[in-house]
Amino acid sequence: MKKEYDKKRPLILVTNDDGITAPGMKALVEAMMPLGHVVVVAPDKGQSGMGHAITIHHPLRLQKVEYAYDIEAYQCSGTPVDCVKLAVDIVLHRKPDLCVSGINHGSNSSINVIYSGTMSAAVEAAIEGIPAIGFSLTDFRYEAHFEHSKSFISKIAENMLAEGMPAGTLLNVNIPSIPATEIKGIKVCRQANAKWVEEFDKRKDPRGQQYYWLTGRFVNKDKGEDTDEWALANGYVSVVPVQYDLTAHHAITHINENWKF
Amino acid sequence: MKKEYDKKRPLILVTNDDGITAPGMKALVEAMMPLGHVVVVAPDKGQSGMGHAITIHHPLRLQKVEYAYDIEAYQCSGTPVDCVKLAVDIVLHRKPDLCVSGINHGSNSSINVIYSGTMSAAVEAAIEGIPAIGFSLTDFRYEAHFEHSKSFISKIAENMLAEGMPAGTLLNVNIPSIPATEIKGIKVCRQANAKWVEEFDKRKDPRGQQYYWLTGRFVNKDKGEDTDEWALANGYVSVVPVQYDLTAHHAITHINENWKF
Repeated sequence: MKKEYDKKRPLILVTNDDGITAPGMKALVEAMMPLGHVVVVAPDKGQSGMGHAITIHHPLRLQKVEYAYDIEAYQCSGTPVDCVKLAVDIVLHRKPDLCVSGINHGSNSSINVIYSGTMSAAVEAAIEGIPAIGFSLTDFRYEAHFEHSKSFISKIAENMLAEGMPAGTLLNVNIPSIPATEIKGIKVCRQANAKWVEEFDKRKDPRGQQYYWLTGRFVNKDKGEDTDEWALANGYVSVVPVQYDLTAHHAITHINENWKF
Repeated sequence: MKKEYDKKRPLILVTNDDGITAPGMKALVEAMMPLGHVVVVAPDKGQSGMGHAITIHHPLRLQKVEYAYDIEAYQCSGTPVDCVKLAVDIVLHRKPDLCVSGINHGSNSSINVIYSGTMSAAVEAAIEGIPAIGFSLTDFRYEAHFEHSKSFISKIAENMLAEGMPAGTLLNVNIPSIPATEIKGIKVCRQANAKWVEEFDKRKDPRGQQYYWLTGRFVNKDKGEDTDEWALANGYVSVVPVQYDLTAHHAITHINENWKF
């Protein structure tokens, strides 16, 4: 399946978690086409909320498919992280210069970064040493309007290609779903310390057996003006640099000083 | 389903990703029983490699089941993270004093923290504000020997109950699968900067169609003696404090100084 790519143009891998047929992905492909040679490897169905799941109990299918603009495209039966692994190991002839994931239908700000298949695909690319960005629009509907996102996405991707990021980091970009004229600019932020409060929807099936739908309320008590939630609420595109080294370095001292082994 | 618990004893939620029938979970329950009132909520089947996945496309089932030592136990049809959410919202009458996940059959050191259902369950508990620890043994076999792990697990859990951790942090504990007499002690470490190199196993199904099994080699080029990999290789139990704020704070400056928006 491997193919030679033009060495003078950046090679850009596009993936997502809403599936290869999502409108958000098409908008992202369109934003990337002027910047380089685009290859799509994406899930064959919605994979929202899959986090950093990988498929180890089932075999994976990978199928070449038709895509708009004659873009080379593959759909995969697995998770967004599986897609990136298959792209790097099976599909692409060389390491891509950039991996972009999205545009997600719905916000991945704050703690959502951890549940998000969109962001986990970007994290996996970063682990592979590929400059990576996840893009999300704060509108979860199929009919969401992605047009105004493209100029911000281009600008951020161009900077990533030109300037890069420190080793072991990537970007989580969220775009407010408001008219283009109301967007005030781009803000580099930290992840707000917010969370979901679960409210399971309890139902009975036709046999009278209980089942549950996961649902909840997003609660943000972090009022910091340096957070992604503040930026989005105030009309900015939020850009949060993310890392996959999860070590809480400050806690090492706490344990060494207070715990007794 | 909610039940009053003795307020004088710590309430301890036990979960895992290998499923409720895994021997590693029974060993963890046994290690916790002297420390408090134990309740088990765990997946009804193996959920290894599920990362921080949540179930949003299917309803969840939660069923009370028999467990050893008359422990109150429930199996759930979802992921490890779903188990913790259901435990907190549906099963438990009050917020537990501790959530322990494992003992995982297999290492969750270094980058494995990000793919691990065991660790994601603990992360979810920490997001809920519950002191949380993931325990793993570096032996993935069903027949792995967990007995020698118990004294280390008790010691670490006792410290967690007595001293706690800084807000927003939890622990990733890995225990080397070597004879108890050869374990030199407990070491607080950082996550080694290692990764998996994919080597997909390509096969043809009986109809001649290609499919892939995800497999790979773990490659560690991080020789730091302050890493979990070093600790495990040198006969120590590794304790890595983990955080779920993924912000790469040092990269904020890099972007603000070098990127042009």
